Amino acid sequence: MRRVAVIGIGITKFGEHWGKDLRELALEAGIKAIEDAGIEGERLDAGFVGNMAGGSFASQEHLGALLADHMGLNPLPVTRVEAACASGGIALRQAYLSVASGQHDFVVAAGVEKMTDLDTETVTEILAAAGDREWEGFVGATFPSLYALMMRAYMLEHGATEEDFAWVAVKNHKHATKVPYAQFPREITLETVMKSKYIATPIKVFDASPITDGAAVLILAPLDEAYSYTSDPVEIVASGQASDTIALHDREYLTRVKATEIAAQQAYKQANIGPEDIDVAEVHDAFTVGEVLAIEGLGFFKYGEGAKAAREGLTTFGGKVVVNTSGGLKAAGHPVGATGLKQAYEIVTQLRGKAGERQVKDAQYGLTHNVGGSGATAVVHIFRRV
Amino acid sequence: MRRVAVIGIGITKFGEHWGKDLRELALEAGIKAIEDAGIEGERLDAGFVGNMAGGSFASQEHLGALLADHMGLNPLPVTRVEAACASGGIALRQAYLSVASGQHDFVVAAGVEKMTDLDTETVTEILAAAGDREWEGFVGATFPSLYALMMRAYMLEHGATEEDFAWVAVKNHKHATKVPYAQFPREITLETVMKSKYIATPIKVFDASPITDGAAVLILAPLDEAYSYTSDPVEIVASGQASDTIALHDREYLTRVKATEIAAQQAYKQANIGPEDIDVAEVHDAFTVGEVLAIEGLGFFKYGEGAKAAREGLTTFGGKVVVNTSGGLKAAGHPVGATGLKQAYEIVTQLRGKAGERQVKDAQYGLTHNVGGSGATAVVHIFRRV
Repeated sequence: MRRVAVIGIGITKFGEHWGKDLRELALEAGIKAIEDAGIEGERLDAGFVGNMAGGSFASQEHLGALLADHMGLNPLPVTRVEAACASGGIALRQAYLSVASGQHDFVVAAGVEKMTDLDTETVTEILAAAGDREWEGFVGATFPSLYALMMRAYMLEHGATEEDFAWVAVKNHKHATKVPYAQFPREITLETVMKSKYIATPIKVFDASPITDGAAVLILAPLDEAYSYTSDPVEIVASGQASDTIALHDREYLTRVKATEIAAQQAYKQANIGPEDIDVAEVHDAFTVGEVLAIEGLGFFKYGEGAKAAREGLTTFGGKVVVNTSGGLKAAGHPVGATGLKQAYEIVTQLRGKAGERQVKDAQYGLTHNVGGSGATAVVHIFRRV
Repeated sequence: MRRVAVIGIGITKFGEHWGKDLRELALEAGIKAIEDAGIEGERLDAGFVGNMAGGSFASQEHLGALLADHMGLNPLPVTRVEAACASGGIALRQAYLSVASGQHDFVVAAGVEKMTDLDTETVTEILAAAGDREWEGFVGATFPSLYALMMRAYMLEHGATEEDFAWVAVKNHKHATKVPYAQFPREITLETVMKSKYIATPIKVFDASPITDGAAVLILAPLDEAYSYTSDPVEIVASGQASDTIALHDREYLTRVKATEIAAQQAYKQANIGPEDIDVAEVHDAFTVGEVLAIEGLGFFKYGEGAKAAREGLTTFGGKVVVNTSGGLKAAGHPVGATGLKQAYEIVTQLRGKAGERQVKDAQYGLTHNVGGSGATAVVHIFRRV
């Protein structure tokens, strides 16, 4: 396998883009990434685009061809990949593997989702397609309710409180205040979270990530060609992907995400490092309990100890590992197909040392963790400053 | 690049499966393929599943995880890929590339679509997501109407008649009579086609492929390990993929499909053969004009001469190249995400010499040609008897 570097990154503002459609968002992030890499479109060999539900959100499938066309890259083979909310991570992984294996040299990894053209109820219904439609969705289980089961089980098993989880939201909103592309770059108090309405007890509105439009794009290249395009390449040193049961009720545990654990083990093994080596991580906090399960599954904290991390300042600047400097899905926003690439955008920015006010000092290793459904797919990537 | 072989194939009956859902169809074809290969599930390294619109047809996305789960293959990383009606071909290509490049050894390539739970109008609307929704679908263009523009332009440019195209349907239905999995295994007459209703002049009902449920699965392996699993491996010797404009009105030609031409050139170059070496081909006849444009774009016939091929018997047994022994999309059926894998299933069956009454004698080279939308994506694979 060849060594692979990120040579260009681009992102749109995350939020409600009433004036831009799916293709315009992807195009904006794509052009920024191509400009950042300073590469000619003709040099590109292939592309992968992560998108969960263009068909349902925007009546548009076939996004590979759409993007190749509107980015002026025809006849470039661009392939859409989908793994629910992990679609972006999967696009990055396919792009990474295609360069690492020598299939291609210069590859686009894109993620995009346009969600705000529909009402919240319809969006919630569409997102339920990430779970087991026959045995979860059709009997009324939405994603807040599935994550509520995990949160409740965790509270029962480990004696954690709703406040523990609320601190995750407070921490991520604080991080977001320094993030130019974040949807909600403003601080919130513990009281704001605790007094917000229950959407599926014990999950409250402020435990949940928002509905978001946005796109993020990376350009990958063989490391030995990267310096022709950038003075600060960031290497992708590992990629892991694992599946678990599509339905939550079929899982071995409610309080651990096995796919995360397996994908992380694959990645640590490939990178030949351990969780203690990671300086900065972007993890999948679609709900606050998601971040807690993630930081345990990734090995940053022991089982049952993740819930206290945000409260005790262990996952913010100066802590054990800085988690979600972007604000996470919670405060930066969660355009589902773009999230995995946004995570990578943020980690590359950190490892380039270009994160400004939110820079994690001397960050050497970064990690991204992207989950599909309630944990049926997990994708983990590890990045290193070269 | 390593040499890659097909070591197992499986397919469901194509048709209206009122009693089986998406996962059951994929599972049925998957188990057949695994049994055909005689491989243990634990040996598999990865999977790719082609599906166009599970979200819209069946309210189910995240098919990679769903299939890994229901085929008992967790934590196998299985990734859904989508390129409209070329989704199956793209799944095959990703699986092929992952073995050829040495990323993985044993890989599943699956395709599935469940379309018949909805009424025809809704299905037509969902399929319009394969084109340019903003500039085609929203102004009323459906796929029959887009292909009608191509057919009309071809008739004008080359003096072809509606009867020329009708012969394609007659030929493919005749082929389907020998095909156990075909949706419509019955002969039709020229009169049946010509007297059928116009759905978008000059396209009639019998120029169009039907709405179909079905699944097809292949198992790929490095050629040098293939003989441990099968006595008759078939090699995949080339894979090509190209994009063109998503909207038909942006194309350079209405009477040629450029993405087909480019993907075919890539494939012939990789295989180091020409169109004259192909004995049997499965091409994308979503509409009869599609087959005509395909056999020209693939280089079997000169521009303007493809329309006469079916009438003159040049694309059936004993002709120049036998096209669509499966009955094509027209008579075997077109479960969109499964079609590319069905094409590969048929070609492998031919090259194994196991096609029974429909066997093409001494077939050495076979080709599959899968198109997304009105030609925005084309995928071409070439197979060889080892």
